[in-house]
Amino acid sequence: MTQDSSFCSLLFQILLNLARSIFEEQNNLECLVTKIMREAQDLLKCERCAVYLLDLECCEASHLERIVERPGKVIERQGPLNRMQSDTVSPEDMRESGLRTPCTFTTIFELRAPGTQTLVSRPSQFDLKTSTLAQIAGYAAATGQILNIGDVAAWLNEQHSEGDAESARTILCMPIINGQKTLIGVAQLINKTNGTPFTDCDVSLFEAFAIFCGLGIHNTQMYENACKLMAKQKVALECLSYHATASNDVTVKLAKEDIPTAECYNLYSFSFIDFELNDEDTCKATIRMFLELNLVQEYHIPYEVLCRWVLSVKKNYRPVKYHNWRHALNVAQTMFAMFKTGKMERFMTELEILGLLVACLCHDLDHRGTNNAFQTKTDSPLAVLYSTSTMEHHHFDQCVMILNTDSNNIFQALSPEDYRKVMKIVESAILSTDLAMYFKKKTKFLELVDNGEFDWQSDEKKELLSGMMMTACDVSAIAKPWDVQHRVAKMVADEFFDQGDLEKLQLKEQPIAMMDRERKDELPQMQVGFIDVICLPLYKVLSETFPWVQPLYIGTLENRQHWQDLAEKVEMGLTWIDHDTIDNPVEAFTGTFSFSILFTIQT
Amino acid sequence: MTQDSSFCSLLFQILLNLARSIFEEQNNLECLVTKIMREAQDLLKCERCAVYLLDLECCEASHLERIVERPGKVIERQGPLNRMQSDTVSPEDMRESGLRTPCTFTTIFELRAPGTQTLVSRPSQFDLKTSTLAQIAGYAAATGQILNIGDVAAWLNEQHSEGDAESARTILCMPIINGQKTLIGVAQLINKTNGTPFTDCDVSLFEAFAIFCGLGIHNTQMYENACKLMAKQKVALECLSYHATASNDVTVKLAKEDIPTAECYNLYSFSFIDFELNDEDTCKATIRMFLELNLVQEYHIPYEVLCRWVLSVKKNYRPVKYHNWRHALNVAQTMFAMFKTGKMERFMTELEILGLLVACLCHDLDHRGTNNAFQTKTDSPLAVLYSTSTMEHHHFDQCVMILNTDSNNIFQALSPEDYRKVMKIVESAILSTDLAMYFKKKTKFLELVDNGEFDWQSDEKKELLSGMMMTACDVSAIAKPWDVQHRVAKMVADEFFDQGDLEKLQLKEQPIAMMDRERKDELPQMQVGFIDVICLPLYKVLSETFPWVQPLYIGTLENRQHWQDLAEKVEMGLTWIDHDTIDNPVEAFTGTFSFSILFTIQT
Repeated sequence: MTQDSSFCSLLFQILLNLARSIFEEQNNLECLVTKIMREAQDLLKCERCAVYLLDLECCEASHLERIVERPGKVIERQGPLNRMQSDTVSPEDMRESGLRTPCTFTTIFELRAPGTQTLVSRPSQFDLKTSTLAQIAGYAAATGQILNIGDVAAWLNEQHSEGDAESARTILCMPIINGQKTLIGVAQLINKTNGTPFTDCDVSLFEAFAIFCGLGIHNTQMYENACKLMAKQKVALECLSYHATASNDVTVKLAKEDIPTAECYNLYSFSFIDFELNDEDTCKATIRMFLELNLVQEYHIPYEVLCRWVLSVKKNYRPVKYHNWRHALNVAQTMFAMFKTGKMERFMTELEILGLLVACLCHDLDHRGTNNAFQTKTDSPLAVLYSTSTMEHHHFDQCVMILNTDSNNIFQALSPEDYRKVMKIVESAILSTDLAMYFKKKTKFLELVDNGEFDWQSDEKKELLSGMMMTACDVSAIAKPWDVQHRVAKMVADEFFDQGDLEKLQLKEQPIAMMDRERKDELPQMQVGFIDVICLPLYKVLSETFPWVQPLYIGTLENRQHWQDLAEKVEMGLTWIDHDTIDNPVEAFTGTFSFSILFTIQT
Repeated sequence: MTQDSSFCSLLFQILLNLARSIFEEQNNLECLVTKIMREAQDLLKCERCAVYLLDLECCEASHLERIVERPGKVIERQGPLNRMQSDTVSPEDMRESGLRTPCTFTTIFELRAPGTQTLVSRPSQFDLKTSTLAQIAGYAAATGQILNIGDVAAWLNEQHSEGDAESARTILCMPIINGQKTLIGVAQLINKTNGTPFTDCDVSLFEAFAIFCGLGIHNTQMYENACKLMAKQKVALECLSYHATASNDVTVKLAKEDIPTAECYNLYSFSFIDFELNDEDTCKATIRMFLELNLVQEYHIPYEVLCRWVLSVKKNYRPVKYHNWRHALNVAQTMFAMFKTGKMERFMTELEILGLLVACLCHDLDHRGTNNAFQTKTDSPLAVLYSTSTMEHHHFDQCVMILNTDSNNIFQALSPEDYRKVMKIVESAILSTDLAMYFKKKTKFLELVDNGEFDWQSDEKKELLSGMMMTACDVSAIAKPWDVQHRVAKMVADEFFDQGDLEKLQLKEQPIAMMDRERKDELPQMQVGFIDVICLPLYKVLSETFPWVQPLYIGTLENRQHWQDLAEKVEMGLTWIDHDTIDNPVEAFTGTFSFSILFTIQT
């Protein structure tokens, strides 16, 4: 192999140049093709070079979706392309082929002499029909084979006094293949400068150029498509922003209203209940929390922007049974109560308090009443986008979308540094509401607590603590007075059963027990399990470390007893669900009304 | 060169295989890297091969925007990479470099012996620190140069009894470069099977593999990014659909209402006025047109779906001054009047009538009160997406978006063939509302008419006729009774002046006269020009061919006289705008109130 090394080195120098061209010119097809043609002309020492491209419509925005699999002529090849010499094919074959399948080149790049500029043309059908060179290229395209013509005049059997092939003595034509073995064009060399026909080695070299040409064009198209897809995405987000933002009328109205006190809404209590509040009150209660935490003043949030943002957040919760705006409000209120009544404010910076409150309000934005597993099972676009914490990533994305919408950015007065920090806090807090994340993080947290950690100020520890607090708030319906917990559990169950129904109907799958309407009588026991596995351990360790949050632990313990009692009644064949029917067997009520109790978890 | 031809042929066989791999495995990085490593192992006859990749986080959805220019180590190279032999660098250099910039490989692909499976690992910082092979790869990454070590043990100056380099005798390390000359990883060969060091030719060959590896990884990433961008787009569209669709409450309410007669709304008249209608009436009038044209029955449009669709279309017009839902309704009503009173129904198939009515209602969806030129000037994402007929493409896209939204598809009962046809009609009709298209098409249309065309049934002629009708409807405010035309012209002018203000303010540009608030007194003359250049010729030829649409011509002629009178008053130094102030000079009113009259065109 060593005797070849100088040739070898030359070749790789050329390959390097070609590869570099592919990257450098990915946003300019013409420059790319020109560079490749120049290299080919130079190395193969010929007079003219041309590249004929077939329909490039795949770059049209309306056809973007075809980026993955573009229809076109598919060429199956196991090795090098077949080579046709002038003696194996005739111009008649070519003309017949041209009549059967007229060539449909949309763009032609030509170097008519060494050192000249590239001519780019978009030929008409007439141009193509009257050009012999295009006909020859068309034949290579139609057959998918290499065409090497050593004596053009003799082959054409013409006086070559007419047409664009008149000055052509030798021609080498090579199909260009794109991804998915699709033919995308033809490369053509005309006239070796030394007057000889193209050799086998020329053919091999030119094949390499055609390969790079194919790669380069493919790359350029992918790049262009990616740019267009990004533009499309921006357009969609812009429209979405328009629709997702609260209207000015409603905003102005809210901004003019008085905001009742925190006491009026019972915001300091771990037993806060939203049932009695109307929609406007839920917004006012939210604003009250911002005021009470001094965030409006501290971060110079324009009051109207705050009002609009709260209304927009509310608007971006869907009317599903549990994971709706009311749930977000409740989670945020528990966070507020933990800060104030739970005295955890003292462990947090002002910025962290802002971030966590915002995270609570946004943590389930645009929830569709189905969990992460459902996204994966149904191959939803969201699951394609995010393979883990699918919905949580989406909730955060929606949170960002709202903040980025005109006059909705409550963080607008923050310094760039604070802005970056608070967004990081919000992202991390929202992602931590995925229970899968909770399970990953809790061991580490318990370890810290067991080691008697008192200083939660390092970034890592603060993130861990914040994550635990998010989960504590997210599941806090479990700690509410029994009648509230009972009613909320029914809403959660309803939403889960709806997903279970979807799984039966659409996926023909048996849902897990928790989502199976048929197994609702197992639910008190599952609720006890949920309390034992997730809620109690979390509230226990939090109360031990931060004693003022104990009401969450106590409330959960009490509800555990209620669920345990119900579970035992079910065990004994008695129903367990509604107080007024508690002593009747389950069977008596099935079908007459729909009831259900379930895990108060989300994800 | 001929003596090299068999080697040459072998090389290109390999190149072909590599290129094919790049296309075939574009959705699977592991398979791609494995194929390339196998080829390298085979050709270069060595025991082991590995590819170390740096941070591939660019594939994360949240970093998709970096697809275009990803930050990273940039390697400027004019020719082949520098080659470092063992004698020019020392292991101490390497260790020092490793301390300065620890290697941050995130993924390692390894072929530990010929014919084995690829091992894929995601090493921790600890793994990287304790692996000599990774340190060597890291050094190649840090320096961006080729490292060729002929005797590993001697070079390391160790008894090679420990570490993962113990069995390595010779090592060749090659940086892998991605687009924009960014370093993305390192390829590593270990132990020539014949025991010799790697030769210069080996280095050149391996460099080619590294190039293909870089191209392949780049391609895989682009492909993956494109897939993720598409998923992101789908998510955004799904959210947009949710917000863009009319609520169920409003839909059910509308569906229950009685729909007044066409006479009641004056729908058959070319002098229809929407000013007196409230928003609900505008929807009812729209539904009445569908009923009157028998489209609900003919195409089995579920009545509630029709109601929801009309409400959704209305919702997707923004509250801009002119190009809002009222404009869409007026355009649709003129189309209706042309069908019925203008008796053009007879030239159209039922499907064309459906398509044109839908096109009129949707033809300005999501208009932002700025024209195509403004999109281009401001480099808006829409202009990136569509370089010509920018807004019209967007209007059609929004139309499709609404139809694709749950329970909004009024075409749902159509056969696939009819569905395709009607969408084509809608697309072509909406695109033809770009006045630039009108100018392109009218010559051809006039030619046909001049040649006494009576048969409009061919696809091409029908499309031409439909396009002319769309423009005739779009500008039909110009043919309304003078007081209506006067009032509408003021709305158009207001919207244009708003754009002009934006151009002055944001772009620091002098707007064209039509959009320049300062030049409002030139507008009656411009309105005359608009009538003479666009409206009158179009209405004239239409009335000559289809006599029953003559009211459009007559009305426009009358308004031309009014504008001409005003223009002359302006010429004489009298104002021209409001009837009650018509005799006062312009100066007296400037600044005290805002008035304006302008072209009633859109685009």
